[in-house]
Amino acid sequence: MSAIASNASPRTANAAGNDHERHLVRVEETLRSIMTNLPGNRVLETALHHHLDAGGQRFRAQLCIDASIALGISEQAATAMASGCELLHNASLVQDDLQDRDETRRGHTSVWAEFGDDVAIGLTDALISSAFAALADVDDHTRVAALVKIAHAAVAETVAGQHSDLAFRESPQQTVAAYLSIARAKSGPLVALAMQLPMTYCGSSTSLTRAGRAACAFATAYQIVDDLRDRESDRATDGNPGALNLIHLLEALDVPEPTANAVAIAEDHLAVCRFAAPGLPQGIGAPLLGQANVLEDTLRRLRHDG
Amino acid sequence: MSAIASNASPRTANAAGNDHERHLVRVEETLRSIMTNLPGNRVLETALHHHLDAGGQRFRAQLCIDASIALGISEQAATAMASGCELLHNASLVQDDLQDRDETRRGHTSVWAEFGDDVAIGLTDALISSAFAALADVDDHTRVAALVKIAHAAVAETVAGQHSDLAFRESPQQTVAAYLSIARAKSGPLVALAMQLPMTYCGSSTSLTRAGRAACAFATAYQIVDDLRDRESDRATDGNPGALNLIHLLEALDVPEPTANAVAIAEDHLAVCRFAAPGLPQGIGAPLLGQANVLEDTLRRLRHDG
Repeated sequence: MSAIASNASPRTANAAGNDHERHLVRVEETLRSIMTNLPGNRVLETALHHHLDAGGQRFRAQLCIDASIALGISEQAATAMASGCELLHNASLVQDDLQDRDETRRGHTSVWAEFGDDVAIGLTDALISSAFAALADVDDHTRVAALVKIAHAAVAETVAGQHSDLAFRESPQQTVAAYLSIARAKSGPLVALAMQLPMTYCGSSTSLTRAGRAACAFATAYQIVDDLRDRESDRATDGNPGALNLIHLLEALDVPEPTANAVAIAEDHLAVCRFAAPGLPQGIGAPLLGQANVLEDTLRRLRHDG
Repeated sequence: MSAIASNASPRTANAAGNDHERHLVRVEETLRSIMTNLPGNRVLETALHHHLDAGGQRFRAQLCIDASIALGISEQAATAMASGCELLHNASLVQDDLQDRDETRRGHTSVWAEFGDDVAIGLTDALISSAFAALADVDDHTRVAALVKIAHAAVAETVAGQHSDLAFRESPQQTVAAYLSIARAKSGPLVALAMQLPMTYCGSSTSLTRAGRAACAFATAYQIVDDLRDRESDRATDGNPGALNLIHLLEALDVPEPTANAVAIAEDHLAVCRFAAPGLPQGIGAPLLGQANVLEDTLRRLRHDG
């Protein structure tokens, strides 16, 4: 992902690209080090590294790094905020796998499946707490209060979204509107946070809502693409109510052509993202637009498959 | 608990007592409001109030309030820090009940027993995150980074302690030294934090270790008193390995007079607390000393019962 390359001269684009890679290496080091030097933590540290070794593109960290570079934020502050975002996201992954009883993540065993429920629970706590400690590592300490508050708001929305998701599976009245609200709340706030933290650090609060709208629309479309890919593996099995999946919901509601309809709903959300992202300051919406284009291509393929 | 009354004139003692009560009411309001105005949170909010309604003396909040008043800290900052301590402590209670499968707390059903595991997990996340948001509410924003870092260190130690506790129950090599290290790590850091936050807010870092030593010794003695009280209910039952309990451990190690020995170990820890606490600045160790005296009386009774 090269965030601001499109509007920059080749030399500047290269410099930004180098900064991006160097920042990303620092973030990875931070993620891996959070359990070091703690008494009695060896299993928790092993579980952390097991989880991080499964990979992932560190999308939220990349988004935060590119936004920080575009806004002229120091390497120290950029990597601190990117680490904070990524730690919160990984807390949600470890916990979602536990709550959904998903035994694998990206081909690796999930933390609870490999180390037990208690390790997954303890690691989630440590990841959440470390995220706030990471935010406290920005160089301008006068900004920490604002960063902590906006991160907490994103965590609270994510927790409420995950709770609504679990409740939804048992609900007799499942609607598309409820599905969309849950998909948005579950992953939108932490994607938005990746842009909102650098904006808040710069004292720019006017576009926070726009960043939230673009990120939540993108995250909803992303979830629908995931549903289209997983429509078979998400099916309910004995003793398992099955994951939240828009295609299953549309089928249950007797909506004709559920795949084509799901694709159309995802495209509507990408359109909202494309409308909101370009208006963000200093082109910080560019990486999200780039990812929206990737999703659009995927949707085009899935539409033909369906 | 009247922290600094012993060295103050009657009028000052009354003023401090009034401040203490007013601060405590504000903390209680903060604790109850953390899930308000969140979409889809009604069950989480109900679970929070259910948990808080079970009571508790809010010991960590009281300790933090008294230390803040003694150090001349504003009401806003004192209540923000006291709320932060108490939110973290309550997160640990909700989670411990879940992990230990304790169905009651202070005569009320525990959160997981009343609302299910997923609600207990989500509420724990929300409590931890809210604690950091509470710390960001102090009036001097330049101090938030230091408060967040010291709170994170306490959370990380507590998580490691809880993990060691769960692992200890399955361990074939249980020693008194390991028991003491776990008892200390599980509850010492959050008691210490109640004094360390106001000290850190004032920029006084020289006595942080002393506060930690006094609080950890007190917390260990408190745990042993709990073990003496619960020596029957903590026994292992079918399918349950039983809770960490010093008296059971001493019995298993064939130590003669296990009750008298447990009492003696608790008294040694109270002696450490009594040695360390008076040297804290502005008499902020006084409430801890007061509670140590209460524990000493309890131990005297338990020694005769045993």
